[in-house]
Amino acid sequence: MSSENHTAQRVGIAVIGAGRIGLVHCEALNRVPDVHLVAVADFVYQAATTAAKKFHIPLAFQDWKEVLKLPQVRGIVVCSPSDTHADIIVAAAHAGKHIFCEKPIDYDLKRIDQALSAVERAGVLFQLGFQRRFDANFRRVRQAVKSGEIGSPYMLHIVSRDPAPPPISYIKQSGGLFFDMMTHDFDMARFCMGSEIIEVTSLGANLVDPAIGEAGDIDSAIVSIKFANGCIGTIECCRKAAYGYDQRIEVLGSNGSVNIGNNYPNTAIISDSQTIHRDLPLNFFMDRYKDAYAREMETFVDVIQNHKTPPVGGIDGRIPVVLAYAALKSMKEKRTVRVDEIDAQYCVRSKF
Amino acid sequence: MSSENHTAQRVGIAVIGAGRIGLVHCEALNRVPDVHLVAVADFVYQAATTAAKKFHIPLAFQDWKEVLKLPQVRGIVVCSPSDTHADIIVAAAHAGKHIFCEKPIDYDLKRIDQALSAVERAGVLFQLGFQRRFDANFRRVRQAVKSGEIGSPYMLHIVSRDPAPPPISYIKQSGGLFFDMMTHDFDMARFCMGSEIIEVTSLGANLVDPAIGEAGDIDSAIVSIKFANGCIGTIECCRKAAYGYDQRIEVLGSNGSVNIGNNYPNTAIISDSQTIHRDLPLNFFMDRYKDAYAREMETFVDVIQNHKTPPVGGIDGRIPVVLAYAALKSMKEKRTVRVDEIDAQYCVRSKF
Amino acid sequence: MSSENHTAQRVGIAVIGAGRIGLVHCEALNRVPDVHLVAVADFVYQAATTAAKKFHIPLAFQDWKEVLKLPQVRGIVVCSPSDTHADIIVAAAHAGKHIFCEKPIDYDLKRIDQALSAVERAGVLFQLGFQRRFDANFRRVRQAVKSGEIGSPYMLHIVSRDPAPPPISYIKQSGGLFFDMMTHDFDMARFCMGSEIIEVTSLGANLVDPAIGEAGDIDSAIVSIKFANGCIGTIECCRKAAYGYDQRIEVLGSNGSVNIGNNYPNTAIISDSQTIHRDLPLNFFMDRYKDAYAREMETFVDVIQNHKTPPVGGIDGRIPVVLAYAALKSMKEKRTVRVDEIDAQYCVRSKF
Amino acid sequence: MSSENHTAQRVGIAVIGAGRIGLVHCEALNRVPDVHLVAVADFVYQAATTAAKKFHIPLAFQDWKEVLKLPQVRGIVVCSPSDTHADIIVAAAHAGKHIFCEKPIDYDLKRIDQALSAVERAGVLFQLGFQRRFDANFRRVRQAVKSGEIGSPYMLHIVSRDPAPPPISYIKQSGGLFFDMMTHDFDMARFCMGSEIIEVTSLGANLVDPAIGEAGDIDSAIVSIKFANGCIGTIECCRKAAYGYDQRIEVLGSNGSVNIGNNYPNTAIISDSQTIHRDLPLNFFMDRYKDAYAREMETFVDVIQNHKTPPVGGIDGRIPVVLAYAALKSMKEKRTVRVDEIDAQYCVRSKF
Repeated sequence: MSSENHTAQRVGIAVIGAGRIGLVHCEALNRVPDVHLVAVADFVYQAATTAAKKFHIPLAFQDWKEVLKLPQVRGIVVCSPSDTHADIIVAAAHAGKHIFCEKPIDYDLKRIDQALSAVERAGVLFQLGFQRRFDANFRRVRQAVKSGEIGSPYMLHIVSRDPAPPPISYIKQSGGLFFDMMTHDFDMARFCMGSEIIEVTSLGANLVDPAIGEAGDIDSAIVSIKFANGCIGTIECCRKAAYGYDQRIEVLGSNGSVNIGNNYPNTAIISDSQTIHRDLPLNFFMDRYKDAYAREMETFVDVIQNHKTPPVGGIDGRIPVVLAYAALKSMKEKRTVRVDEIDAQYCVRSKF
Repeated sequence: MSSENHTAQRVGIAVIGAGRIGLVHCEALNRVPDVHLVAVADFVYQAATTAAKKFHIPLAFQDWKEVLKLPQVRGIVVCSPSDTHADIIVAAAHAGKHIFCEKPIDYDLKRIDQALSAVERAGVLFQLGFQRRFDANFRRVRQAVKSGEIGSPYMLHIVSRDPAPPPISYIKQSGGLFFDMMTHDFDMARFCMGSEIIEVTSLGANLVDPAIGEAGDIDSAIVSIKFANGCIGTIECCRKAAYGYDQRIEVLGSNGSVNIGNNYPNTAIISDSQTIHRDLPLNFFMDRYKDAYAREMETFVDVIQNHKTPPVGGIDGRIPVVLAYAALKSMKEKRTVRVDEIDAQYCVRSKF
Repeated sequence: MSSENHTAQRVGIAVIGAGRIGLVHCEALNRVPDVHLVAVADFVYQAATTAAKKFHIPLAFQDWKEVLKLPQVRGIVVCSPSDTHADIIVAAAHAGKHIFCEKPIDYDLKRIDQALSAVERAGVLFQLGFQRRFDANFRRVRQAVKSGEIGSPYMLHIVSRDPAPPPISYIKQSGGLFFDMMTHDFDMARFCMGSEIIEVTSLGANLVDPAIGEAGDIDSAIVSIKFANGCIGTIECCRKAAYGYDQRIEVLGSNGSVNIGNNYPNTAIISDSQTIHRDLPLNFFMDRYKDAYAREMETFVDVIQNHKTPPVGGIDGRIPVVLAYAALKSMKEKRTVRVDEIDAQYCVRSKF
Repeated sequence: MSSENHTAQRVGIAVIGAGRIGLVHCEALNRVPDVHLVAVADFVYQAATTAAKKFHIPLAFQDWKEVLKLPQVRGIVVCSPSDTHADIIVAAAHAGKHIFCEKPIDYDLKRIDQALSAVERAGVLFQLGFQRRFDANFRRVRQAVKSGEIGSPYMLHIVSRDPAPPPISYIKQSGGLFFDMMTHDFDMARFCMGSEIIEVTSLGANLVDPAIGEAGDIDSAIVSIKFANGCIGTIECCRKAAYGYDQRIEVLGSNGSVNIGNNYPNTAIISDSQTIHRDLPLNFFMDRYKDAYAREMETFVDVIQNHKTPPVGGIDGRIPVVLAYAALKSMKEKRTVRVDEIDAQYCVRSKF
């Protein structure tokens, strides 16, 4: 007995952008049994063909518009430079493709709203790339808060540190620490607490590298936040942690606290005549969030296959940008800023 | 061969105030071989006699002025209610006694200055009761920062949580969270960083118990701070942590970080079918800082015996009070407050 | 620009046995980009077709002999019941297929030798399924010992506990704890220490469930071992740990120690009014060794593609069986047993 | 109001032996409020006078017999060389003094029995110096086993490592590793499990320093043990751990496990570009067991004051010596040794 027809219909996906994060998504998609990775596009054509070869993707393009023409593509994964996101979203929505988009949609609120309008009118599904929402640690925090395991929440503290600052050229076009780095943490604050941020008070410093200050940015920041539910919290970001990528959250509630640490390559403890030590944590987001990226792609495929509501939607991409504007304003004016000073409507569609 | 004269001259000490912390100091003093605990005084005479009996102290008084008359008393340990501290300090200085005083000296800057002037004029030694400076964990943080082990410091984070709020009656006369609770943390911030705080921005909330709010206080607070050396940091305080007393500090620097946790009654890890767990941390300051109190008293005796400069002096009792005023002002006015707005001279004698 | 021919030649693999471990390997193989999962076979035909459907495998068979006829199959992964392993190995070797085989090859030394002879004569590659060798924790132990990081090794301790005993029906045909369970640990002892075991002294007990004793087996055992390099160690196994799968190793050496713990689903620490706790470790081998199975399959594919020496060979499957016989004899005779009493030639081909 | 008669009657204690452990006990006794440290004796008279001066002890002697004549001495603490213990015990019992004695009573079973007989006939109280029984970690293990917190016990594992081997001169007269070092661990095994050991199987090696082997001793040993309650376990000892004193126990039971680690000077975690590390554990018994020694002395004073049964009695000093003989025999004969082969009556008076 044997059979040739055991393979079911797979979901056709195309990846736009074959840089660092594009390759991470290709690898993650390759692990989802129900996916057919149809095409990859990159402005640097060789990047596209290299990815195609490595991940056995049949089609490679230079122009992302080509992948929107392929009927076998049901969803696209947008990993191209940030300033192309809004245009690709609008075009993909018109082409009827479901969209997964890396953050940010844009840093211009008007362009964000245009992109999200196009998605809404076309009725396509839209998922935003806040991969930390799929990380087992952050999910455990969310669960502890949501389930009442720690009682009513009181206070939140987020530590978010990169192993080393990016090149100054990147810093200059990054939008600044509040936009480039802290938007992820604003999302985590909202996600873990299950409540919107209504006030921010921020403090920034240029401690890591004077060149960052000369480029007009800060490299270290603390933002105190107040939530709609009355809770308070802090987010601290730094562009450099000598020991590697450091991403932790603690929430205190009436019945206790939940506190997550980093992930490590192994559990070995070495004891020698100097110290008791262990290896450094997983060094950067590709390693730390490898499983999260995998689950994120599985979710996107599941969203398409079963026409589910994406767990991270367009509004979740808009809110952190408004918060970054508020944090910037607070730092400059040395005062607490109500988020509705920036955008009176900023979270009207929020689900919390 | 035998001999009767092996015991050297001991330092005569009297304890004023035989309440909770007074007993802690009696016990600590009893452990210092070179101390002769001469007398104890308490307005509640029975408290004094009970302590005398328990710790084999020969003399017990109701009136603290009596102990200042005893020639064999070289130093006094002030553990009476806060509003008596300044008077006792002035009188003891006039009597030529060296002084150890629990915090606060007072919450009135003028009275603090009067007390410290009396001390200075009399030339007696004065040590303030910030016992955390003698805690092995906090000292390790200080060492890591001071020695350059973590490079140049960038950011500080302090978590300070009590197991449960005190009675509302206490809250009402406590001076409020910033004075009663956070002055300890302001001292730790200065001590660990080795730099003065020049700006504070604070956020308070009433989350633990509405009665605290009705009493005019907050129970949860976050203060963002800026140091003279450019570093930034946060202090978060809460009147309640269901799992007990929680006192932690983290400092990030250019070469890494130092991070201290709580102390536990034992190291046992119990694994059962529900969780992997350990017993709760040492529950409150008498347990957590038992060794610190012992070292604090040893240091006070050593200061007297060898006429050393006390490691925590009068200025260290004044500065946190100024910071508490600044934090209160910032919370009310929803803006960053420069500490010299409160007191233009606030740290002119600081040693950092 | 686009292209249709980016996909390179993949290695054709067939899986024999679609039970628990067979599905684990199918999933792992699906994640290796260079693999084409050609066929799956299972005596229970529906198990084969279900696996084929789930993992998009084109061919499903009831009879494993069918997969050996397929020219596109270069390697087979043997996950069928233990008593079929030797026959499949011999047949696959004759068919010129490379072989990955789950442990054990067999528990009969003669049948093991026949199977390994067939492999050797055919010149096919043979890799044994000791997946722990691919686990990041155990590899870190091996590295610490091999690199001299802990100096010259002195002593080893292995803890190996299952979450719960298997059904009594399984126990009865399992070969007993020393064969079924401890062979994995014997392999780890050899692997981590890099030296052969020359003496064993064992102690067994029936503590978990009397029915296990009635079935003629033990459920708890301690084996003291002596290595050829003079080191000593212990392996302790138990069929039940209420908190889940527990797999740890510690090695002490002249310069220090290395100590590995379990893996957890997340890093969250929950503190409440009872305990400080975390979730249970990953519960059983499919979860704990998920990454190890992935790496094991990647290695097998790499071994085939590049005709490398498999990192776990036939001799590594034979040695632990000899050790299990020695442990059994020691327990019965209440004395230390030299391994060469069981099999004079037992590790002549070992690479250490 | 004042009073001169607040000090109650204190218990007069004399310390015999002012070496390393004698000073530890003097310091511990000084911390017990109800103790009057009356006298200290040491064969090296200067050691006695130095201790007297440091701890404000009025009397110092060279000859220990002098302290037995003092009527104000109710109890003695024996810290002199091991070979003097039995004689001192007999003389002190005759003098009607209560006795605290460091381990061992003796390594000769006949002399042990003579000493214990003298104690019994005189009706004085006798407490043995197994200080680990007063350590918070080991007590937590005992509690977890005794209370049923981990269910019925199955298996025990003890790790016992010294920071570095003692001088060869000490090794030669130490009685050997099983007597000098492992008797402490035999006591811990009995104490934690609450059951007597009935069989031992041992394995020894000379790995740390060839000079130890030349002196006729081993430096590394593993003893597998069987308890009267059916449980099994292992004790592993090593004379050297580069990272310091290492004392851990794990017990597995039907409902879970309890696992204790070492104590550290602080809780600081330092993260730098190389590792995540902490300072070494407390280095040796004086530091690790400082609190245990304090509690041990408090207990001895309480035993005298209230005529209680000492928690560690004479039989607890005898049993580990019998076990050490059994372990030695097992290692030499390469077989399991029943403890009643050594001494048919070895634990008839045991309380378990």
